Amino acid sequence: MNPRIGEIRDSDTILKKAHVLFEPEGKKITVTQGTSIFDAANRSGIKIRSECGGEGVCAKCIVIVSDLSSVSPPTGFEEERIGKKEMMKGRRLACLTKILSDLRIQIPKESRIGKRRIQVEGYERSFEIDPSVVKIPIHVEMPTLEDLRSDIERVLEATAKQGIMIKQFDHQVLRNLSSTLRKSSGKVLAVIRKRTELIEVEEGGSSLSTLGFAVDVGTSKIVATLVDLKTGRNLASGFVENPQMIFGEDVISRISYAMENSSKLKELQSAFIDGTEEAMDIALKEAGASREEVYELVIVGNTAMHHLFLGINPKWLALAPYVPTIKRSLEMKAQDLGLKMRESARVHIPPVIAGFVGSDAVADLLTLKLHDSNQTSLALDIGTNTEVFLARDKQVLTCSCASGPAFEGVHITDGMKAVSGAIERLKIDDNGEVTYITIDEEKPRGICGSGVIDLVASLLIRNFVERSGRFISPEKSERIQRRNGVLEYLIEEGKNTETGQDIVFTQSDLRAIQLAKAAIRTGWKIMLEESDVNPSDLDAIWLAGAFGNFLDPKNAREIGLVPDVNDKKIFFAGNAALSGAKISLVSLEERERMDVIARETKYVELGAHRRFNEVFTSSLSF
Amino acid sequence: MNPRIGEIRDSDTILKKAHVLFEPEGKKITVTQGTSIFDAANRSGIKIRSECGGEGVCAKCIVIVSDLSSVSPPTGFEEERIGKKEMMKGRRLACLTKILSDLRIQIPKESRIGKRRIQVEGYERSFEIDPSVVKIPIHVEMPTLEDLRSDIERVLEATAKQGIMIKQFDHQVLRNLSSTLRKSSGKVLAVIRKRTELIEVEEGGSSLSTLGFAVDVGTSKIVATLVDLKTGRNLASGFVENPQMIFGEDVISRISYAMENSSKLKELQSAFIDGTEEAMDIALKEAGASREEVYELVIVGNTAMHHLFLGINPKWLALAPYVPTIKRSLEMKAQDLGLKMRESARVHIPPVIAGFVGSDAVADLLTLKLHDSNQTSLALDIGTNTEVFLARDKQVLTCSCASGPAFEGVHITDGMKAVSGAIERLKIDDNGEVTYITIDEEKPRGICGSGVIDLVASLLIRNFVERSGRFISPEKSERIQRRNGVLEYLIEEGKNTETGQDIVFTQSDLRAIQLAKAAIRTGWKIMLEESDVNPSDLDAIWLAGAFGNFLDPKNAREIGLVPDVNDKKIFFAGNAALSGAKISLVSLEERERMDVIARETKYVELGAHRRFNEVFTSSLSF
Repeated sequence: MNPRIGEIRDSDTILKKAHVLFEPEGKKITVTQGTSIFDAANRSGIKIRSECGGEGVCAKCIVIVSDLSSVSPPTGFEEERIGKKEMMKGRRLACLTKILSDLRIQIPKESRIGKRRIQVEGYERSFEIDPSVVKIPIHVEMPTLEDLRSDIERVLEATAKQGIMIKQFDHQVLRNLSSTLRKSSGKVLAVIRKRTELIEVEEGGSSLSTLGFAVDVGTSKIVATLVDLKTGRNLASGFVENPQMIFGEDVISRISYAMENSSKLKELQSAFIDGTEEAMDIALKEAGASREEVYELVIVGNTAMHHLFLGINPKWLALAPYVPTIKRSLEMKAQDLGLKMRESARVHIPPVIAGFVGSDAVADLLTLKLHDSNQTSLALDIGTNTEVFLARDKQVLTCSCASGPAFEGVHITDGMKAVSGAIERLKIDDNGEVTYITIDEEKPRGICGSGVIDLVASLLIRNFVERSGRFISPEKSERIQRRNGVLEYLIEEGKNTETGQDIVFTQSDLRAIQLAKAAIRTGWKIMLEESDVNPSDLDAIWLAGAFGNFLDPKNAREIGLVPDVNDKKIFFAGNAALSGAKISLVSLEERERMDVIARETKYVELGAHRRFNEVFTSSLSF
Repeated sequence: MNPRIGEIRDSDTILKKAHVLFEPEGKKITVTQGTSIFDAANRSGIKIRSECGGEGVCAKCIVIVSDLSSVSPPTGFEEERIGKKEMMKGRRLACLTKILSDLRIQIPKESRIGKRRIQVEGYERSFEIDPSVVKIPIHVEMPTLEDLRSDIERVLEATAKQGIMIKQFDHQVLRNLSSTLRKSSGKVLAVIRKRTELIEVEEGGSSLSTLGFAVDVGTSKIVATLVDLKTGRNLASGFVENPQMIFGEDVISRISYAMENSSKLKELQSAFIDGTEEAMDIALKEAGASREEVYELVIVGNTAMHHLFLGINPKWLALAPYVPTIKRSLEMKAQDLGLKMRESARVHIPPVIAGFVGSDAVADLLTLKLHDSNQTSLALDIGTNTEVFLARDKQVLTCSCASGPAFEGVHITDGMKAVSGAIERLKIDDNGEVTYITIDEEKPRGICGSGVIDLVASLLIRNFVERSGRFISPEKSERIQRRNGVLEYLIEEGKNTETGQDIVFTQSDLRAIQLAKAAIRTGWKIMLEESDVNPSDLDAIWLAGAFGNFLDPKNAREIGLVPDVNDKKIFFAGNAALSGAKISLVSLEERERMDVIARETKYVELGAHRRFNEVFTSSLSF
């Protein structure tokens, strides 16, 4: 049936529209009938929690609709995950529910991507300040009829007099060069990068600072630290949730999304740009500075993030043998990436090691100097993917463990990220009494990674859980209860929680933690074996990652997450990746060191290791 | 008096609009009352003739308005140049006349920038084909679990196997690299530039040609020749009036315009982009090719054009000591200049020699090989600025003569460019009868440069004009007449012309030609003196420039434009600058040669030369 021209014009006749109001924001949007609530929220800039990227798998995107007759009928999956009773009250999964006519939609607190506690600081070691970008005052001679050299030649002569031999400059340097020279009677500032590139010539009286940003693009967050390039001092930090989160919480969901077509890849790339600019602006505002003063960025991230922010299709990172398109370091204009910054601003992208060991890992290694130490050390950067490093005799082995997001509260019944209201520390005393601390001291909403580790350790210590990972029968504690035939531990009753629902930890939650722990344990066990190192040989264990500093090392050891060593040998490196990015921002020598580190670190593909299955199986029990 | 909000909103109340219809195009535009007709035409894309850039000086922008009451009252200058009677018929100067209410405006033929006869071909010498951009088939190995190198490393290995060591690649090469490799099972085409830069990797089955453009950006025209980079063959050429023409016909007007503010500089730069794309598209259409197949451009032009198309403020080229911002050659992405082309397409900008000796002159020298010849040669590239080259013992001297646009018909009463209806050849026989040929054999509308040279030579030969440049009294020929007290020569009566007006050549026209000739003659005389060369020592005189091939060498010699040598020693090089650009597009060695040429050519600043005044005075008489 071909619609006639007249019908096409009147698009409302064919593609009917519906008006949606999101609450509590009060945001309005008009969408085509049949659009999912998830897509509509996405388009209106409202961030709904999702781990699967809106694929109807994770069941985290619960919303409350004002009118059940204005949306598509419930699916079996929703009934199973939400329950008929809750559905009658309007609760639906945003990704599976289609808008049929005008309605109001409420997004409950637990479905929002909230403000997170972010690990900005990392272990800071000493290093020499020798920034890539410097401003040098020069005195350029003015032309005469006897000296007809071009203006740029005079500039190059003046920089040469300062011992700087320029080998490269962009044509954009030339735009206002002649006017700038004359306005300042030849007394100008040459902005030099990497000792040999002229990136700008500024008027002598310019009062612009010389600032830079170290940026860590994580799967779930983007952190940007503003640095004074002259002094190497951190001025401020800003962080945002990675806006790519709405396309899926984990790396694989985002790679799948990017693979669909090139416009989706662009969507992810511009989400990165938006997030980075937002994080930078937060830091700039705090420091009272402007984007105009920023001359260089060093951006690190895991290899998937690295490919996505460069606009490289990451498809092949998800398929064996998982090779990156590029490993070596790269440089470009900030504007070429799409960042709205001064024309001369540049981006340095440190190298990556492998498909699942990115430039954040190289930055970790730069911070920790494992290649330069005589110690035998193990380092773990714990996250959705956990990087394991083992250093012995200045040789470093690395592997990546698919630990999954369980330690970040994902796939845990009442798990949540480290945001307000999350139980972050927990203890079960001799009498079986539970005490805990929540973030921001709010009423508890759920439990985050460090809380889960404390909980599991306590359950083991109190013998509520067997070393095999099985809950013992309920008689041991009144908090152990059976719901729908499954055992669970009651952390807090509904009457004391924010949501009015019990906060529990189930047998399957325990299994998820067990698997995550086993993945990480397998990683370091194989690294130790490959290097012929016993846990007792270890001089140090470094724990890095956002979650590092909030961890109780005793409990981490109790559940087998780290080798059995003396507490004194366990060190926290915090956001070591961000520290490394900052070091390479303000020290050219250290920056070049990263290329050596990436080349000299030996990568072991865990999935292909002959001992993998055996070690993994033995790593499961606590 | 502060307008209230309500008043500001209703912009029609404060800034009244007028509707204008341009004829014969039938183009409509709405402008704010008070806008000049010149600006209105400009905005609607209609090109009105102007030498002064709309400054109310040249009086070439005559238009006919439908209603005198709809425009501003006449100025004294208009009355003087157009005459009261003509003004009553609606004739006005577009730049001085402001639109007050709705009206129709007719643009007469003589005020239009018409289609021109363009010198596309230049002298073509032989050279070895060795293009900068080549496509090499390579076979890239696929990764395995045992070989986890990144995809780009594999590509570099494969090119190395072909003897090509890549030192540089842009991050944009990486975007689809991994997918391209897998789609083609590793059998791909590496697009290499300058032997060491990888600019793209294409699927093995790609059927794209490898094309390039040689572009000559003249003050008044842009010519683009499409070249097959593989064979070096010219496929087609396109030319357009330089769209910057509407901002002034000569270089100085445009520099003045650009100096006003940065948005005017941008206007000029984007006019260049538009013109270049238009010229390219004409050639591409003729050759049945697409912009997607174009990988490189070589663009030459005088130094002012060079600065303008790079977006460099050309202000200081117009002020002593006239030094360029840059002389050396430059390279950039075509997209960085604003050209809508494939991402990998690059632009090469050859070097310039001085503020008034541009890359077009370097291209002339490359074509003519003056540095490589044992001959003693003089070369002239005649235009608004005329470049003079003198070669002796492989040493080349150059200078620029401010010859002005008289030879292009500007500042000549009935002068015009070499477009349809221009008298291009002319003879006065023994009986004083005038015979002439017009371009396209149309009814005469005026006289162009080659016609003027024929005319002046004939007037001298027939003794109608003294060697001092003074018309003899009318009795010598009935065509010599006195109008408003000034002598003039009647070329054609109004009854036989297109416009119905007489075509004449006045005493002041003769003075303009005399000055232009003297400027050029001073240039080569000083060059000869500086090199200690007599005219009789010259082995060759090369005449280049659009106007070259249409010139009668005998007449040029007669009026003293060129030294007195045997006809056989005079050669036409046509558009030697475009030929040179093309040579450097398809031969890397020749391209590098241009840098040497620019450095080794000795520039003489004529204005500062001690002998200038003396030689100029002696060069005035014919």
